[in-house]
Amino acid sequence: MEIVLSTHLPAADIAPKTLHQAMRYAVLEGGKRVRPLLAFAAGEITQAQPERVEIAAAAVELIHAYSLVHDDMPAMDNDVLRRGKPTCHVEFGEATALLVGDSLQTLAFDLLASHTLNDNAQQQLHMIKILANASGSRGMAGGQAIDLASVGVAISLPELEFMHIHKTGALIRAAVLLGAHCGQLDPAQIEKLDHYAKCVGLAFQVVDDILDASAPTAILGKTAGKDAADNKPTYVSLMGMTEAKSLAASLHQDALLAIQGFEHNQRLREMADFIIQRTF
Amino acid sequence: MEIVLSTHLPAADIAPKTLHQAMRYAVLEGGKRVRPLLAFAAGEITQAQPERVEIAAAAVELIHAYSLVHDDMPAMDNDVLRRGKPTCHVEFGEATALLVGDSLQTLAFDLLASHTLNDNAQQQLHMIKILANASGSRGMAGGQAIDLASVGVAISLPELEFMHIHKTGALIRAAVLLGAHCGQLDPAQIEKLDHYAKCVGLAFQVVDDILDASAPTAILGKTAGKDAADNKPTYVSLMGMTEAKSLAASLHQDALLAIQGFEHNQRLREMADFIIQRTF
Repeated sequence: MEIVLSTHLPAADIAPKTLHQAMRYAVLEGGKRVRPLLAFAAGEITQAQPERVEIAAAAVELIHAYSLVHDDMPAMDNDVLRRGKPTCHVEFGEATALLVGDSLQTLAFDLLASHTLNDNAQQQLHMIKILANASGSRGMAGGQAIDLASVGVAISLPELEFMHIHKTGALIRAAVLLGAHCGQLDPAQIEKLDHYAKCVGLAFQVVDDILDASAPTAILGKTAGKDAADNKPTYVSLMGMTEAKSLAASLHQDALLAIQGFEHNQRLREMADFIIQRTF
Repeated sequence: MEIVLSTHLPAADIAPKTLHQAMRYAVLEGGKRVRPLLAFAAGEITQAQPERVEIAAAAVELIHAYSLVHDDMPAMDNDVLRRGKPTCHVEFGEATALLVGDSLQTLAFDLLASHTLNDNAQQQLHMIKILANASGSRGMAGGQAIDLASVGVAISLPELEFMHIHKTGALIRAAVLLGAHCGQLDPAQIEKLDHYAKCVGLAFQVVDDILDASAPTAILGKTAGKDAADNKPTYVSLMGMTEAKSLAASLHQDALLAIQGFEHNQRLREMADFIIQRTF
């Protein structure tokens, strides 16, 4: 995945150099690549060509990376550490970080439009729509807006879930769906894959909250305990640690159930396991 | 055009409401709509269906609007007035303005992927690529990066031109090309339309610099004389007013020459005239 991302990012010696260096800094060397791995795992279900899934996976990861760059900026979360390195605006300044996020988003759509991802161009247009819906004001960016509005406010568990379904869940669903759409998709599979993705996406966030409340900064590669310090609602703060862990386990089971019976589902099962058991 | 934009922007009463209100604020009621008008004028050359050009025009205008929102932010130009109103971050806060720009960009690609713009889906994918190339780090956003790097630095006329070709020229070219691509495009026309668009795009910027140096804020709807105050290089500061006016006139002539002999070129000719003769 690193090679794919590196190949499709603009070279650091092409003008404007600082912008391109900063784009590469924000994307390469770091990140768990959960979304690309999910895209590949879903692509196995539909027997998609790996070199097509690669592009879809890279596009989703670029959207994710852009959201982190903008989310870390002082106007938003004001975070200084990401993937064990200074955040993009700390390293390159706020103006460049703003343009980095903007340009990474554009590059994601550029990739989806510039490479053959499916023999059916109409299906490929549909894939672009999936990514746009997942990323925009009714998806990821909308989730961030809800997140902003909920800082320091007493929100309920359903409201927290609504926020995460948008903020992180939408893009994780897009990763699974885009990977699958690179292959021969059986319409009956879409709903089940989508349910798997919803469970895994929510579980991912619950585990994130558990780790944020318990793991040290050195292991996370980002500032630990920051949500609590920022007075942000989390699954742990609303449910307690024990209940949060039990919710994660139950989402894990639901995810596995959704893809039970699919051929070639081993990697999707492994991804569900990884998302629950990860320690960073 | 206002109705098209209003229809395709998320309604202000759909959650997240503040984000959607701010997106509408940033796009509606204001703006010269030069890019949409150019898309329509180019669509006449290829006899494109107006309801298709509408979508392409809206997508380009959304990219333009997103760039203004981000460009006006304190980390960039720190401008407080745009289209006669407080800028988006002044009205809604920086965090929301950041998400507004992000979401408007996503919506632009969403529109191009969600509507039929050409009977040939492959051609439609190519259109998405055109918009992405024009907007990204080797287009508009790259131009802004070069602009940032040139504040307070003595740059030459070719460097200024290189910056503007990216910062404003690329999206104006995309507007013309996307409008034309909604219809039956004769490959021989593309190069000429592209040359027209390059001339008009550069002329637009030269006239912008002339107006910035001479027109009052009340007429411009944005802070006049700001480039000079910010020590930004302009055509007027590098060439002087007389030479800048003569460059604009010569680009105007070149633009008209490029489309000479095209059928249905009246609106393109009018747009070239408007861009040179405008007073705001």
